[in-house]
Amino acid sequence: MRVPALATDRYELTMVQAALAAGTADRECVFEVFGRRLPSGRRFGVVAGMSRVLEVLEGLRFDDADLEALRSGGVVDDRTCEWLARYRFDGDAVAYPDGEVHVPGSPLLQVRASFATGVVLETVVLSVLNHDCAVAGAAARMVVAAEDRPIVEMGSRRTHEHAAVDAARAAHLAGFTSTSNLEAGVRFGVPTAGTSAHAFVLLHDSEREAFAAQVAAQGPGTTLLVDTFDIAEGIRAAVEVAGTSLGGVRIDSGDLAVHARFARRLLDDLGATGTKVVVSGDLDEHGIARLSGAPVDVYGVGTSVVTGSGAPTAGLVYKLVEVDGRPVAKRSTGKATHAGAHRVVRRHRASGVATEEVLVAGGADVDERPGDRSPQVALLRRGQRTDDTADSVDLEAARRRLRERLSTTLPWDALSLSEGDAAFPTTYVGEA
Amino acid sequence: MRVPALATDRYELTMVQAALAAGTADRECVFEVFGRRLPSGRRFGVVAGMSRVLEVLEGLRFDDADLEALRSGGVVDDRTCEWLARYRFDGDAVAYPDGEVHVPGSPLLQVRASFATGVVLETVVLSVLNHDCAVAGAAARMVVAAEDRPIVEMGSRRTHEHAAVDAARAAHLAGFTSTSNLEAGVRFGVPTAGTSAHAFVLLHDSEREAFAAQVAAQGPGTTLLVDTFDIAEGIRAAVEVAGTSLGGVRIDSGDLAVHARFARRLLDDLGATGTKVVVSGDLDEHGIARLSGAPVDVYGVGTSVVTGSGAPTAGLVYKLVEVDGRPVAKRSTGKATHAGAHRVVRRHRASGVATEEVLVAGGADVDERPGDRSPQVALLRRGQRTDDTADSVDLEAARRRLRERLSTTLPWDALSLSEGDAAFPTTYVGEA
Repeated sequence: MRVPALATDRYELTMVQAALAAGTADRECVFEVFGRRLPSGRRFGVVAGMSRVLEVLEGLRFDDADLEALRSGGVVDDRTCEWLARYRFDGDAVAYPDGEVHVPGSPLLQVRASFATGVVLETVVLSVLNHDCAVAGAAARMVVAAEDRPIVEMGSRRTHEHAAVDAARAAHLAGFTSTSNLEAGVRFGVPTAGTSAHAFVLLHDSEREAFAAQVAAQGPGTTLLVDTFDIAEGIRAAVEVAGTSLGGVRIDSGDLAVHARFARRLLDDLGATGTKVVVSGDLDEHGIARLSGAPVDVYGVGTSVVTGSGAPTAGLVYKLVEVDGRPVAKRSTGKATHAGAHRVVRRHRASGVATEEVLVAGGADVDERPGDRSPQVALLRRGQRTDDTADSVDLEAARRRLRERLSTTLPWDALSLSEGDAAFPTTYVGEA
Repeated sequence: MRVPALATDRYELTMVQAALAAGTADRECVFEVFGRRLPSGRRFGVVAGMSRVLEVLEGLRFDDADLEALRSGGVVDDRTCEWLARYRFDGDAVAYPDGEVHVPGSPLLQVRASFATGVVLETVVLSVLNHDCAVAGAAARMVVAAEDRPIVEMGSRRTHEHAAVDAARAAHLAGFTSTSNLEAGVRFGVPTAGTSAHAFVLLHDSEREAFAAQVAAQGPGTTLLVDTFDIAEGIRAAVEVAGTSLGGVRIDSGDLAVHARFARRLLDDLGATGTKVVVSGDLDEHGIARLSGAPVDVYGVGTSVVTGSGAPTAGLVYKLVEVDGRPVAKRSTGKATHAGAHRVVRRHRASGVATEEVLVAGGADVDERPGDRSPQVALLRRGQRTDDTADSVDLEAARRRLRERLSTTLPWDALSLSEGDAAFPTTYVGEA
């Protein structure tokens, strides 16, 4: 998808105009993307969308139609339009790769460029990261709650049609098995899956005819939706029509724990011992956890994952932290920031469990310890990709990275669904 | 923007395949879009996005790349691809126009078409309406809370970059004065506005130099951000630099009620009696209401409006209610629906206040009363626009419509921000 150059805040461009006129537009600046806190109840965040940030950094262009709209709308002056027409990101970008975990203050992205070059990115970079990280952060908790059972993302209808595609990718990054969203399959290679809707059953003269039509088209390995009229009768009809090699039955309403147990027993009684029980319907991480003892084979999750399960935006901000080598920060009441560009040292125990996120400003020294690693990688250097770029934004690499973080890096407590402290504390060193 | 044909759920297309093979794809069906309940705490919903639904109905096409992806991915068979290649919506669509209010059960959209034609629309139509109605529903409450004070939408950075553009439109539809999002200005004619960021102040050697740069570029009518270091000093510097004709000062942090009062007093003392006080920073409808006694001239609202203020999706569903004239409905536990296509009669008192939403199924009769009106209009008839189409999706018409509903149609109680019943009850008549 083309990066929408004008899907930005008006003030980003008027600030460019004022800075160009004042002679300050070219000052070398560092901006950092971070969250002041995690969403309520969360103990860690998950980085997602860095692949799309890379597209923004490499692809943002103001075309003739954009510039004409800015001119005719009186948004900025000719000089600024000329500057925007030549826009190419030529700075450095240091990032946490997709699939990395983060805590409050973690600089997910650090942009070093002229003020004007960097400020133009603010709105769109935040839109991308606030959306994708919100989905991935929620999805990761669901994946933890589901233990080894697969989860299908099916929330496209509950979010903006373009957001849905990126939400499907972010959920898959976090460990969801597949998505209902076909465009996410085409664009990102996320496996797609689907069953059928109550409408399909109701269309036909009987549930049995509907099942026969679906099995004829999809084969007996398909998953039949059995809760349109009566679940037990639905299951009997499903097995009669498809045979005991029926792939699955889906239950989309009612008390899923109760229904899953009865469904499993009935399927087994009918000889369909390999038929999977798929459940969906207003599930979130807590609903999934409550089903951990039920004979569920596959979860379908919609609304809660695409809306970040209570935290629809990751709360990330994009702040100027350094100007011409001088650390800067807002100083008045509230929303204070930590001045200076930060190098991050993540401390780990010998077991690999992370213990501290150390943010080092102003070239200060910190003692080196075994187990120190930095989550930061160079995404772009003077606008060019580095050896780390491809791996940082690759979907499969991100999935592996997060799996490793969930199994090894995060302390066990951090996987709890209940309220609690961040997975590990953030410490600032050498602050101005 | 092109309607993304594959931003849909896989099962919509596999159901088409199965129905084509079973000979049921051409059965005449009615689907209805409605909410089973309003989001928690809400007393009414606001229709938004019908203009985009119209674009979907008129513009949905499966192009060669889409079809090739479906074929090569093994999603559907050749026959289905051929059917999709010819896709044109040729049915009827009856809608609640943009800016109309709705309650539980209200059929915001009714699609009458062949099963296959109608089912293909489900995911994308819901994506559009669930997003836009969520934003407009939240925005309307903020507009009510703000009374006659203007609100600027500035939430683009807190939502997906494409959703942001439509969120800006939905907020404006609900009564927001303007948006920070430039693309919404270009695409929909929403007025755009902006001030500047803390970064702009920090870029310069002093706050005063930053203010001078902004005033030089934007004129003294601009709004200066005064809370980077010390608000009182910031205001003094702002008036010194811009003069007493300074357009506004923005305060983006701290206790906004306290700061607004001190800012107003100081501005008046400095002779800047016409300078506006603009406040922003985590405001939602409740925060706005709490500031009703403070000398605030303009509110800036971001996160809460674009994320639906606690209800990021409107919870609308798209359900099959009629097949070949026969009313149908899911019958098992939970998620039950009311069978049959519904004609809506909204009852009103002589004063114009609505008292009841009557949903009439199956051609049943209801007594006619003075004050009866129907919120439903014909959006498309056999795929063609009607005399009502343009007005139903026009942004200015929608703004007027909602203003009228908020001032006249809704009972006063419905404007309360606290929990309570829906604005008026829903009654089903002639249900199958």
